[in-house]
Amino acid sequence: MDAPEVVIQRIPLYVRLLNQFQIDGISVASSSEIGSALGMTSAQIRKDLGYFGHFGTQGKGYDCAMLLKELRGILQIDKEWAVALVGVGRLGRAIIGYPGFAPEGFKITAAFDVNTKQVGKAIGGILVQPISELGRTLKSKNIHIAVVAVPTNEAPNIIGNLKECGIRAILNYSSISPKVPNEVKVRNIDPILALQSMTYYL
Amino acid sequence: MDAPEVVIQRIPLYVRLLNQFQIDGISVASSSEIGSALGMTSAQIRKDLGYFGHFGTQGKGYDCAMLLKELRGILQIDKEWAVALVGVGRLGRAIIGYPGFAPEGFKITAAFDVNTKQVGKAIGGILVQPISELGRTLKSKNIHIAVVAVPTNEAPNIIGNLKECGIRAILNYSSISPKVPNEVKVRNIDPILALQSMTYYL
Repeated sequence: MDAPEVVIQRIPLYVRLLNQFQIDGISVASSSEIGSALGMTSAQIRKDLGYFGHFGTQGKGYDCAMLLKELRGILQIDKEWAVALVGVGRLGRAIIGYPGFAPEGFKITAAFDVNTKQVGKAIGGILVQPISELGRTLKSKNIHIAVVAVPTNEAPNIIGNLKECGIRAILNYSSISPKVPNEVKVRNIDPILALQSMTYYL
Repeated sequence: MDAPEVVIQRIPLYVRLLNQFQIDGISVASSSEIGSALGMTSAQIRKDLGYFGHFGTQGKGYDCAMLLKELRGILQIDKEWAVALVGVGRLGRAIIGYPGFAPEGFKITAAFDVNTKQVGKAIGGILVQPISELGRTLKSKNIHIAVVAVPTNEAPNIIGNLKECGIRAILNYSSISPKVPNEVKVRNIDPILALQSMTYYL
């Protein structure tokens, strides 16, 4: 049975935790130890991991290094991915300058903007191209992932373009929640929703 | 019974959808219409909303305007919140310049940085203060929410400072998942986890 998307969205948390376990010298962990570190029940941990095979040994727990390797392979994050950035305003520039992507295998190798004043500039070593070059460049650079950092009013058009050009994964910083076909995945980075889920507690 | 945090985290999605319904002229919606728009079951919608009272009428659905008003009140997003920003590098500046916060009632009214070169500057009309002023300013400006936009290696210290100064809600852009006491809420904005949950499908 295929793992539901909500499970897939949790696997990166397991990967991050297992990385931390390695740093801390923890080589074996039980489902309840993993669960307690992630604020989940041990049953949920076993169920999540069960979608991908039999990793643990009854009563002995999981071999952290092996589980980490397996999960990285399942997520396909054991290789490098080329990423396109659309929108090189303040946010886009912060994203190009963000040092966290490259060590995790995500490399921004192309940038685009609708603003002709931006086109032709080099930002962080990346040439800003016009949107009209999207299709050709995505193909020639084998890019399947795009980061959308354009103003919200431009976002629907841009996301439409990306879909037409065959992009399969979109990290969306605009505040629309775009409707996309099933074969395109979108993750919305939405600080407003995050803030609104905390004021309840104030 | 108190609503679990996972339910509270979904309420902003309901609010956003109900706003859209108002724009679209939809005044009444059933739990299955809401569910289908959010990719959830109608039973889950009824259960989520049931934590806060009896909003719908059996067989008639929810009065969207009333439900929206109630949920905004429950989340306490029907008022304005003062927000502190810590870290005014590239990302912090993009956050100050982000036009999406103010219309939703989140107003950045104070900014801080550990870098003495930044202190004393005005960015987007906000004076950058040293971290040593944190406690005094949060109190005088009645700030309970902070946005952390410092490099990951600085984040544990900053988050420690914020906790000591009585901050109750942290929007964290660094890539650590800080451990905080139960009375402090944290939401992590983490593009790496989002990307890693999409490569599975490529």
